[in-house]
Amino acid sequence: MSSKEILKLNPPGTIGIIGGGQLGRMMAFEAKRMGYQVIVLDPTENAPCGQVCDEQIVAAFDDLEALRQLAKKSDVLTYEFEHIDVESLYMLEEEGYKIYPSAHTLKKINNKYLQKKMLFEAGIAVPALHDVTSLEDLKTFFHTSGEKVIMKTCLGGYDGKGNAIVRSVEELEKQYQRFKGHAIFCEELVDFEKEVSVLIAKNYQQSTVYPIAENIHKDSILIKSIIPARVSKETEEKIKELACQVSEVLEDYGIFCIEMFVDRGGNVSVNEIAPRPHNSGHYTIEGCITSQFEQIIRVITGMPLGSTRLRKPCVMVNVLGDRNTESHYAMEGIDSILALEDCHLHLYGKVGIKTLRKIGHITALGDSLEEADQKASTALKRIKTVL
Amino acid sequence: MSSKEILKLNPPGTIGIIGGGQLGRMMAFEAKRMGYQVIVLDPTENAPCGQVCDEQIVAAFDDLEALRQLAKKSDVLTYEFEHIDVESLYMLEEEGYKIYPSAHTLKKINNKYLQKKMLFEAGIAVPALHDVTSLEDLKTFFHTSGEKVIMKTCLGGYDGKGNAIVRSVEELEKQYQRFKGHAIFCEELVDFEKEVSVLIAKNYQQSTVYPIAENIHKDSILIKSIIPARVSKETEEKIKELACQVSEVLEDYGIFCIEMFVDRGGNVSVNEIAPRPHNSGHYTIEGCITSQFEQIIRVITGMPLGSTRLRKPCVMVNVLGDRNTESHYAMEGIDSILALEDCHLHLYGKVGIKTLRKIGHITALGDSLEEADQKASTALKRIKTVL
Repeated sequence: MSSKEILKLNPPGTIGIIGGGQLGRMMAFEAKRMGYQVIVLDPTENAPCGQVCDEQIVAAFDDLEALRQLAKKSDVLTYEFEHIDVESLYMLEEEGYKIYPSAHTLKKINNKYLQKKMLFEAGIAVPALHDVTSLEDLKTFFHTSGEKVIMKTCLGGYDGKGNAIVRSVEELEKQYQRFKGHAIFCEELVDFEKEVSVLIAKNYQQSTVYPIAENIHKDSILIKSIIPARVSKETEEKIKELACQVSEVLEDYGIFCIEMFVDRGGNVSVNEIAPRPHNSGHYTIEGCITSQFEQIIRVITGMPLGSTRLRKPCVMVNVLGDRNTESHYAMEGIDSILALEDCHLHLYGKVGIKTLRKIGHITALGDSLEEADQKASTALKRIKTVL
Repeated sequence: MSSKEILKLNPPGTIGIIGGGQLGRMMAFEAKRMGYQVIVLDPTENAPCGQVCDEQIVAAFDDLEALRQLAKKSDVLTYEFEHIDVESLYMLEEEGYKIYPSAHTLKKINNKYLQKKMLFEAGIAVPALHDVTSLEDLKTFFHTSGEKVIMKTCLGGYDGKGNAIVRSVEELEKQYQRFKGHAIFCEELVDFEKEVSVLIAKNYQQSTVYPIAENIHKDSILIKSIIPARVSKETEEKIKELACQVSEVLEDYGIFCIEMFVDRGGNVSVNEIAPRPHNSGHYTIEGCITSQFEQIIRVITGMPLGSTRLRKPCVMVNVLGDRNTESHYAMEGIDSILALEDCHLHLYGKVGIKTLRKIGHITALGDSLEEADQKASTALKRIKTVL
């Protein structure tokens, strides 16, 4: 099946989503609002998305029969995360089911080493990278990269899981042992000034770029996005240009989030691509005319792209799990958050969630970034989990 | 139970909604976004709200046992329409369940004659009205009211159903016969220049008024709302003042929609109150910082009220059912609607819906009312149902 054959799907057609977390949930909100039916596949009963859509198929992501059942019940499929068995998706495509982005695109992306190599070969700026085949060549790369590198598993990493920053030969050896049995690669550690991300939506007619988000991570987990990113006009142009180049390399339809580094010299390089809506794009729900979630529904149903115009400066902060969320918990401090004007609370309805996993987010809009930032930071201090 | 005892309900507390149509659905979207659990009671399986919330209890609205089951599973109850058996709600309140607005408030409102009489007795401007006890006194009222009146059933009317405009004695006699067996009352027919409505939200701390909507009806069904209403500053003040007076008479917490007439002399009178979010307030989803649906969730969970500030001028148009919607149908023209910037489509997921029943709405935002109106009108022309 060619990914060029786009189906035009009118409501009440059925959209199937692989993965029932918060991204699936927010896709479902938009799809339902627009009159579509939504079915989700997720192994956890009553998953965040399952709570708000027409049906949840409770099954493992590698359960081909369950995936096929989802495909049969749906007019089009998409997914909320990239750690899906690509071969299963290829099989479904061969059986005639439509999936956006395609299995081919997912395959280009979900192995992070191959993803980066593809970008490098297409002439797109990426940090120097190295396929790790032995401790010896890893050491050589370490020394030529200024003795600071980041080791990454090729498959399955997220929120810093599967990554290790290394600044000494001892640590290098330790991590090499720790990762034994996993396919890994190594990158130079970019001495970035800022981390930014940009969403690009592409359908069969056109592509459109969202405002740039400036992202703050802590322990490799996104904690805050600031929109628009505080970069020069020149850097902004570079970032958007790079995003467009990446989207051309991908040759597919969907929402792609491109995370990038900006170094002190204003050089921009690609860190990572996600073939789906992204945490750093949650601000688009209230901040843009068309949210990233509505946009992916538009793309996969063959509808025109919506405007990505920013309504106001935004700051988004993540609400992360703590020891309380490992059991049943309630939230407190909600009242003092809701007392802040134009400050929007999103909780994902997750139970039994580990410390530092995402349980919600808050987006504050303001007339200035400072105002939005102050509101979001205040809100985050006020919310807490209780048993 | 005093309605003054407001419960503070933090997520993931459970909200029970009586009525699973589009209003319940849009309440559920907001409640779920904020991390609450939502259960709805509606007699139609897979009701618009049931599709997007945690659980639907399929039962008749007068099934006390089912209502009690809903109450038991919920921390607080609300409703999306006023044609509920008030006695059942009183019983649930006596059993200790919390309902907002209260059974007492609903009782004041759901009999339209008593509603109007209460307002009249409180000194609030309403059209001249008359409790119909015989054809003779109806005729007397008809003659003293300039020979144009509107006859209304006291209970159960909506979208013009249960209403009859009468301009001749023959018609008066005919309608009197037609309504026989129903409690009815009669009002002078106001020669209004505009129909407007205003939402007022009231919680245990404060109340807040939304921008005024100017409403266009066709065959007694709302077809368009224009926000802000095109009225003078003076009339605007009168309308808001009247809304506040009504809300004081109601002495309860909730979202109240007050529909009013503005005559050519700038006089304002109350037409009807709804103790819930209202069709003419759908514009608040994209148009205001806090939608009417989020606002009712805030009120019933004891949270502070959100800002009712208008982001931009809005025009909302209803999408009404036709012969196709009486069966399974699909929508066409969606693509050309979605091509309009800042034009938002809402479809309610209804099947088997009669001609002229509401199946969706479209809200267009613009830099001017003219721009918003043009977009909304264009959109409405483009959408159609197909079998």
